[in-house]
Amino acid sequence: MTMMKTASDRHLLGLRNLSAAEISAILDRAAYWEEHPVKVSNLCRDRFVANMFFENSTRTRFSFEVAEKRLGAEVLNFSAAVSSVQKGESIYDTVKTLESMGIDAGIIRLKPSGVLPELAAKIKVPLINAGDGNNEHPTQALLDLYTMRKHFGHLQGLTVSIIGDIKHSRVARSNLWALRTLGASVKFCAPDNMQAPELAEYAPYVSIDEALRADVVMMLRVQLERHESGMITSAEAYREHYGLTEERAGRLQPHALIMHPAPVNRGVEIDDSVVEHPQSRIFEQIANGVPIRMAVIERALT
Amino acid sequence: MTMMKTASDRHLLGLRNLSAAEISAILDRAAYWEEHPVKVSNLCRDRFVANMFFENSTRTRFSFEVAEKRLGAEVLNFSAAVSSVQKGESIYDTVKTLESMGIDAGIIRLKPSGVLPELAAKIKVPLINAGDGNNEHPTQALLDLYTMRKHFGHLQGLTVSIIGDIKHSRVARSNLWALRTLGASVKFCAPDNMQAPELAEYAPYVSIDEALRADVVMMLRVQLERHESGMITSAEAYREHYGLTEERAGRLQPHALIMHPAPVNRGVEIDDSVVEHPQSRIFEQIANGVPIRMAVIERALT
Amino acid sequence: MTMMKTASDRHLLGLRNLSAAEISAILDRAAYWEEHPVKVSNLCRDRFVANMFFENSTRTRFSFEVAEKRLGAEVLNFSAAVSSVQKGESIYDTVKTLESMGIDAGIIRLKPSGVLPELAAKIKVPLINAGDGNNEHPTQALLDLYTMRKHFGHLQGLTVSIIGDIKHSRVARSNLWALRTLGASVKFCAPDNMQAPELAEYAPYVSIDEALRADVVMMLRVQLERHESGMITSAEAYREHYGLTEERAGRLQPHALIMHPAPVNRGVEIDDSVVEHPQSRIFEQIANGVPIRMAVIERALT
Repeated sequence: MTMMKTASDRHLLGLRNLSAAEISAILDRAAYWEEHPVKVSNLCRDRFVANMFFENSTRTRFSFEVAEKRLGAEVLNFSAAVSSVQKGESIYDTVKTLESMGIDAGIIRLKPSGVLPELAAKIKVPLINAGDGNNEHPTQALLDLYTMRKHFGHLQGLTVSIIGDIKHSRVARSNLWALRTLGASVKFCAPDNMQAPELAEYAPYVSIDEALRADVVMMLRVQLERHESGMITSAEAYREHYGLTEERAGRLQPHALIMHPAPVNRGVEIDDSVVEHPQSRIFEQIANGVPIRMAVIERALT
Repeated sequence: MTMMKTASDRHLLGLRNLSAAEISAILDRAAYWEEHPVKVSNLCRDRFVANMFFENSTRTRFSFEVAEKRLGAEVLNFSAAVSSVQKGESIYDTVKTLESMGIDAGIIRLKPSGVLPELAAKIKVPLINAGDGNNEHPTQALLDLYTMRKHFGHLQGLTVSIIGDIKHSRVARSNLWALRTLGASVKFCAPDNMQAPELAEYAPYVSIDEALRADVVMMLRVQLERHESGMITSAEAYREHYGLTEERAGRLQPHALIMHPAPVNRGVEIDDSVVEHPQSRIFEQIANGVPIRMAVIERALT
Repeated sequence: MTMMKTASDRHLLGLRNLSAAEISAILDRAAYWEEHPVKVSNLCRDRFVANMFFENSTRTRFSFEVAEKRLGAEVLNFSAAVSSVQKGESIYDTVKTLESMGIDAGIIRLKPSGVLPELAAKIKVPLINAGDGNNEHPTQALLDLYTMRKHFGHLQGLTVSIIGDIKHSRVARSNLWALRTLGASVKFCAPDNMQAPELAEYAPYVSIDEALRADVVMMLRVQLERHESGMITSAEAYREHYGLTEERAGRLQPHALIMHPAPVNRGVEIDDSVVEHPQSRIFEQIANGVPIRMAVIERALT
């Protein structure tokens, strides 16, 4: 972070095109914030950050809001359930409107995939992706990487299994790109109807038994209502075939981590008793989201 | 408030188990804030308070938010209509999530009765009950007591009639416990289908005429839609039998107070012209809610 | 703004009864804020402003919130979709409740027309109208006037065409009153079912071709769903007869401005390519909303 930054350097649209050095710089800065806890910093005092959530997510918005306030920024919350028929233009008009009002940075979460780069090209203020369709969710993956690095000391050489609805998961994709960039290897495990064939060249699909042998077992939230015509139609069947049951958690390597982006479906993709298992980092992931987002917002604003 | 406080001392889950000294200390501190009005104090500067409303109530949330900001705290608003089928676990996961993000105290309002003590036992940050089912609403009762004490100078020996839907009222219960602790006596007045038989040993059910002879006449908000199969089914019938009509207000003792937790159903439990009657303290109650909540939040955070 | 002000001078309920001097003072103060940009001023530090939106409008609320925060005020957001059957009393009770909690000023947006003066007479804190039914939307018109004055240097003698749903437009009415007060002349252009006959004595209804000859062409947002039984029932037909198409925009005088209160229906009342036309001031209007609202809030609070 020592070179002159252009406007586009301050966006964070995804991790696919971020270099190892750029990712590490964010992780390092998050570590700084964790080691130097502040209640409220003056670093971004009087800067205006808008949380523009075109898709609801109270938890993610809350995490960003805590990060923004810890940096001393002024926070504006915009939340709108945009109907599926509305075009990218509507999102553009809204973001351009907020830009016109003088915000310094925007956090944006939206349903459509792939419209963000075009949007960012037309907007002057830096944008931070808080989840766009099934494309990317970079701050979630960054906090996941941070949590792994904190435990293992490094990411190089780790094996990470991501289990669940890969097809619809932006968390899986952002983790995939960043983990590969930093030298870790990823394996996917999912029922047929939840696989993303276009990602098979980057990560093999393996059985649940093989997935459990990894250094990190990352469970994804399953939304069964999305898969009416799929093979796995009940929570019971999903748990039986792909859930991290108490029995399966007992078969993990002693050094392995259990992760989940939350919120969890207790008793579906993960058993109730496993959520706060000694090897689980689920609530620590949530805690790590704050310094990660501080680092990302600071990068956008300075 | 001079003794060392444990974490559980800083929770405020209800008034049933609070001592007279504890209640009085809160009332005294609220009086301090009322006598020393501040626009914004530095007392809780840089502390993060989350308003976690699993049941909507804009007015109560607003009152807490004003109190938090007057104390200088950073405020985070979380609002979620949790469906009735969702379990206490979901509430636990959400509160644990916000705790993980680093909040210093949580204001919580929720539909289910009786889950709060178990929740508080698992959470490290102090929780303040902003209404849980039909169990308790301690800050409402504290502001009611404060309003009475301000007018009468004391609570010992007062008679307080609470009129309306006792069965579903957390306001009635919190007032009952605290008033008894402080030496006042409570009478209930309600149609059969709105009585809570389990409370009859603490406060007798009396006729509306007897209820009107009290020092304080506290009307409750009636939600007739809850009582489809009950005896009183129309607003007109309710007003005729239990409403504080202009005629009934005229029969109150000259020193008696009219109270209501708001929002009022004008023309149902209280006549339009009685809301701002000279003996009414309804809007003063609302004003008193701010110093009361300042005192309660300060108690939680310091 | 040098004379002693009474409480009612600090309300801003509409522009119909505001003098040219009063309007100009607000525009001048907005110009001051634009020329002296601040991130966050101390001018209204520790003052509490409540945004009370009984009718949703995220954009207008956002603009007020930015203005309030730039003035250093504490902001409280109240948003409630009040059903059409609810009485003015409910709004009164809510506003009186917020007043009791100690707010210093209230921004209010509501569906019913004409209840605001009566409400303001019963409330001690200054109220700023953020849109009341089809009556007035004074801050929108003030930012429109500011945008025109900035471009032309003056308003005296300008001709302004307002095109669209005059009947339901509070923007049209607020602009009409203020433009006339400041010496500009207004023309309306609308299909029969969108005309307001009671305004014909103040501004003539002209053809679209004549409307395009003005110094300012202000397009209104059309809500076709309001006009089921009207003459113009499709977006295509509306665009053909009343839309600012690319062709029509090409026929404007070179010095003329294109304006719109936003959000726009691209391809209905204005063509996609015309929104950011060189003569368009649509996003500049949005930007100007912030200093205008700063001036109005400052006027209310000081």
